[in-house]
Amino acid sequence: MNAPVPAHVWPTFEPRLVPAAMLAALRQRFGTRCSTAAAVCEQHGRDESPYPVTPPEVVVFCESTAEVAAVLRLADEHAVPVIPYGTGSSLEGHLLAVQGGVSVDVSAMTKIVRLNPEDLTVTVQAGVTREQLNREIKDTGLFFPIDPGANASLGGMAATRASGTNAVRYGTMRENVLGLTVVTASGETIRTGTRAKKSSAGYDLTRLFVGSEGTLGVITEVTLKLYPLPEAVSAAICHFKDIAGAVDATIQLTQVGVPIARCELLDVNAVRAVNAQSKLGLRESPMLLMEFHGSAASVKEQAETVQAIASDMGGEDFAWASTPEERTRLWTARHKAYFAGMQMNPGCRTVTTDTCVPISRLAEIIDASVAEADASGLPYYIVGHVGDGNFHLAYLVKDGDAEQRALAEGMSLRMVQRAIALEGTCTGEHGIGLHKMDFLIDEAGAGAVEMMRQIKRALDPKNIMNPGKIFTL
Amino acid sequence: MNAPVPAHVWPTFEPRLVPAAMLAALRQRFGTRCSTAAAVCEQHGRDESPYPVTPPEVVVFCESTAEVAAVLRLADEHAVPVIPYGTGSSLEGHLLAVQGGVSVDVSAMTKIVRLNPEDLTVTVQAGVTREQLNREIKDTGLFFPIDPGANASLGGMAATRASGTNAVRYGTMRENVLGLTVVTASGETIRTGTRAKKSSAGYDLTRLFVGSEGTLGVITEVTLKLYPLPEAVSAAICHFKDIAGAVDATIQLTQVGVPIARCELLDVNAVRAVNAQSKLGLRESPMLLMEFHGSAASVKEQAETVQAIASDMGGEDFAWASTPEERTRLWTARHKAYFAGMQMNPGCRTVTTDTCVPISRLAEIIDASVAEADASGLPYYIVGHVGDGNFHLAYLVKDGDAEQRALAEGMSLRMVQRAIALEGTCTGEHGIGLHKMDFLIDEAGAGAVEMMRQIKRALDPKNIMNPGKIFTL
Repeated sequence: MNAPVPAHVWPTFEPRLVPAAMLAALRQRFGTRCSTAAAVCEQHGRDESPYPVTPPEVVVFCESTAEVAAVLRLADEHAVPVIPYGTGSSLEGHLLAVQGGVSVDVSAMTKIVRLNPEDLTVTVQAGVTREQLNREIKDTGLFFPIDPGANASLGGMAATRASGTNAVRYGTMRENVLGLTVVTASGETIRTGTRAKKSSAGYDLTRLFVGSEGTLGVITEVTLKLYPLPEAVSAAICHFKDIAGAVDATIQLTQVGVPIARCELLDVNAVRAVNAQSKLGLRESPMLLMEFHGSAASVKEQAETVQAIASDMGGEDFAWASTPEERTRLWTARHKAYFAGMQMNPGCRTVTTDTCVPISRLAEIIDASVAEADASGLPYYIVGHVGDGNFHLAYLVKDGDAEQRALAEGMSLRMVQRAIALEGTCTGEHGIGLHKMDFLIDEAGAGAVEMMRQIKRALDPKNIMNPGKIFTL
Repeated sequence: MNAPVPAHVWPTFEPRLVPAAMLAALRQRFGTRCSTAAAVCEQHGRDESPYPVTPPEVVVFCESTAEVAAVLRLADEHAVPVIPYGTGSSLEGHLLAVQGGVSVDVSAMTKIVRLNPEDLTVTVQAGVTREQLNREIKDTGLFFPIDPGANASLGGMAATRASGTNAVRYGTMRENVLGLTVVTASGETIRTGTRAKKSSAGYDLTRLFVGSEGTLGVITEVTLKLYPLPEAVSAAICHFKDIAGAVDATIQLTQVGVPIARCELLDVNAVRAVNAQSKLGLRESPMLLMEFHGSAASVKEQAETVQAIASDMGGEDFAWASTPEERTRLWTARHKAYFAGMQMNPGCRTVTTDTCVPISRLAEIIDASVAEADASGLPYYIVGHVGDGNFHLAYLVKDGDAEQRALAEGMSLRMVQRAIALEGTCTGEHGIGLHKMDFLIDEAGAGAVEMMRQIKRALDPKNIMNPGKIFTL
């Protein structure tokens, strides 16, 4: 129990320098949108993970697919690494330039390319964020539900197969991307998928790129499914004496098939943190924060069913967020839990886990992980998309404290081992990045990871696309 | 208009003989479960497509993943083609042994490997059919919704990315396969996915194999999502003066987000055929056959909304199937439309289209295709999963009549061109097989198809897995 493990287990990579000829070509084409300034490079060499900044050699701010293709052709010619960059909100070291190279920043690619409300589809440039999208389509009566918390770019969300609070009802990026425009490692532009809702036309390249973490090409446009805004929306909270009660309630409501839209667990530490940050005055005990979408009658019916189940499991103080403002306040607080947790623990950084297990095993893995976290003495909190069997246990470790960091990494490792033993996954929605490469082998098996490598070698023979992520070659 | 095209456009393939040493090894291991009898080989060299029987040289009846792996290791050693075989119900020539080789029949792999009702998951061997699965899990209160009509094997359904009547609500095999056991081209066994509901762990190998039509490996086990049997189920029919009214009603109910479980169109010819075969006494006009799943209150509400929309669009004679028996009778008749169509036209074979378009373009493509079919003088009928924008226009051509066949193929080609122009797909659920290889290039573009080839070459360097399907190398 509580055995620490070293914090940085990924291998050392040989840097690959950007040749002067390539830099000159980039400067000529992109002018001031090509930067080697230390501050710019450093900002592009980190994400929300606790890993040390590892800057690229140059950052290029692209504004179109054609510009991305121009960078990729140069990178191919000179065998230089390329790291796609959206908003920098990833969590597993995806953006760290472990071999140097070029950061291709698509954050200025913010055009809604085509909105087809009559088909419930939209095509956006990769730099459009989910909040921008929902703002711009508001008048159509439609919305895009996938909500990982951070106001991430849709290209980045596709690249990490993101999901979040609404996934229990609407699925993840896996289910909601209809097609992509991708610039390949050789600088060619291809289009995957169509605007049709389903297709059996050849290999599913769309889903090969969704979750590929920038290792196969740069996603420049994303075609997404949209959904009619529900006629009625209702949010509720329910408190429990312990986490087990909240989890048992979740398991049961999943099994009876209530089409709940969101079902989030906050442990007592998370409740304290959001109370402190957002002045919510919530009772400080484990709670479920839920949301129901549908017709007025169906929302009422869902909520009654859930209230009955929760109450059977010891749920107390079931309360409604009766106004849209109150609902927004609750969800905003939930989304800020990550920052609230850090504010409660000044000088700390967060080591976050992301395991996801079959729903019936959720109580088991949470119980074991909480027992270990309690025994460790490290501050921690839990938030979880428990309707999907996915939760995040966030350990707060003092920045620079190698011992605390190793303690957290050890607990994270054992939680992953538990998840895999329970037929779950080491990552429900954050991706592998640098951090979980060993876990991926434990989970998928050496044969499956070797198949991933074969695909990578075939599509990116010079290993220029975000090298060193997901697996080593 | 009505320009005929040649019926068989696929290239000629060089046969690759099964060497005597390999045949001897197969005979030694499989005994009577290894057959070269003409009748057995011929039965394995065809599917439900109108293409001429193209038998494999040998058929091996496998009973386990280990047995499949043994065959694949021999096939790899001798560079001999392997064609996975489930129930033979595919529609695009997938099973034709265009280069000879070994048919790996998994129809005896009918074990339910593991049922986890508490997680809404089940793992089955590839030969389990959807009807067997639903029979065996009946007592759990769960069901597997994907229903392509034929009682196909779940391995085959995964391999063709099948969907069918329930997809509008529950998705296709793309959304409902959690993981696979696959024997690769080199005879190695890998496992993709986990039993967790979502994952961001590396490349989505599961969805690479779903829809790969046996060209990357043999699927031997499938882990599927299950759903609670709805508390209430209700079916309804509604007649329309013309197809346009039925399609417009479908478009509108999709856009308002009614969670309808099934929404099927039958044109007047299809209604006549099922009337004749199943003695249904339906009014002979275009109709929608719909099904609603949910709580009693929600089903009532959905049906009222749909009835109001249908009535606005000129829908008449809205009628309920009030008993489970009546519901089963209607759906059985719908599923038999394919055979009913052939019975109405003795001596005919069916050339079936499978286009799928964004829902708003559905009326447009159906109108143009019906006009052309009417002008051709060929008998035809339409059935369609119109809630997904997918429909099948089936041309009945006299068996062996090259002229009629070319006429039908010409109309099929132009329908695909229309679908692609409308941002749809040449195949919603049947796959590419032999028949739609050129269409795939038109739809996906040469660059995307070349990427598929690169993946194929990487994972199957000797091109032994169902060669000649999806694309030529």
